Amino acid sequence: MARVSQEHLDARRRQILDGAALCFARNGFHATSMQDILKEVDLSAGAVYRYFRGKDDLIHAIVTEVFDDVRAAFEGAGKEAPLPLPHDLVSVVVGRMLTGRHGLQVDGVSYFPRLMVQVWTETLRNEGLAAVFQEGYAKVCEVWVRIVEEYQAAGMMRTDVAPEVVARTMIATVQGFAAQQALFGESPLEDLRLGLRGLMSMREVS
Amino acid sequence: MARVSQEHLDARRRQILDGAALCFARNGFHATSMQDILKEVDLSAGAVYRYFRGKDDLIHAIVTEVFDDVRAAFEGAGKEAPLPLPHDLVSVVVGRMLTGRHGLQVDGVSYFPRLMVQVWTETLRNEGLAAVFQEGYAKVCEVWVRIVEEYQAAGMMRTDVAPEVVARTMIATVQGFAAQQALFGESPLEDLRLGLRGLMSMREVS
Repeated sequence: MARVSQEHLDARRRQILDGAALCFARNGFHATSMQDILKEVDLSAGAVYRYFRGKDDLIHAIVTEVFDDVRAAFEGAGKEAPLPLPHDLVSVVVGRMLTGRHGLQVDGVSYFPRLMVQVWTETLRNEGLAAVFQEGYAKVCEVWVRIVEEYQAAGMMRTDVAPEVVARTMIATVQGFAAQQALFGESPLEDLRLGLRGLMSMREVS
Repeated sequence: MARVSQEHLDARRRQILDGAALCFARNGFHATSMQDILKEVDLSAGAVYRYFRGKDDLIHAIVTEVFDDVRAAFEGAGKEAPLPLPHDLVSVVVGRMLTGRHGLQVDGVSYFPRLMVQVWTETLRNEGLAAVFQEGYAKVCEVWVRIVEEYQAAGMMRTDVAPEVVARTMIATVQGFAAQQALFGESPLEDLRLGLRGLMSMREVS
């Protein structure tokens, strides 16, 4: 098959994923029909079903891709020398997700945080999605655990706390920031960076 | 009216709120009908409508109460001397929410985190709820800002970061922890405490 043809297939697939992600971010998975998605991407049912078998297939692909992107972004940032501090690492990666692809920019606002919250809710009642979610999350955790281990090995973080636990707490700050963005609208990413920096500066006074 | 009667009214109101919260936590606001709630609390429509006009009224009351409880818990903990450190403060308050009332214990597992995620999703499309949510959140933020200001005044935290920003980041860790509990099941609250402690121990090495 010619190269142009593969490019065309990829672009079409991308277009469908982005349109579906936008629909899910807006109205949630449950309230979105395949008709809504066809209308959003302006393609025929035949054209869409060539790529995806239905809504479940679409949401699985979207969630898998998001986790792959997040993992790759952390993996990339975690290879920099010197190793960036958590507040820089987190804000670079979150910034990439907010401004990146997924076609989730609407009037200059990213619908990515809304997509995250909608996916969480659907994950609560959709076992197939829960399995996809859990697998993606575990892979992101792995990368974070390695980074925390590096902090500890470099003498930058206390070593009497399990790396898994710190990794999950770091991810929690990102999830909470996303929830706040979805609920209250965009706030500067710099706030997350500075907030973490403030928290990390905490000292006991004896 | 006799005292017993007021107690009875309060207990009945409590029973309805708890049953509704459990329904919302299980299936979300949208997919829950008033019939589901009547069945859950085992009361007649007349008995329930004497207290609440409908689902919106119920979710507003639930969200307002949750924010009031969170604020009161932080306010109480924030008055202790010496002022507890963030990881202790957060874990005490979250622990109180997970084991507290709201009738959200099912087989020993708290459905409170699920309720949080469901409320976030509904908040995205329900303007009335969004207003209630925003008001409650702002009040919790205020308490946190005062606590961060105390840390800064006591020389325990760098002062070149706005207290609002640190407060929102602390709240984000709680929201993210709740999302993880909802998505992956209960994990020890001690993990949140230790994770924050690890993060707060972060030092730059020059």
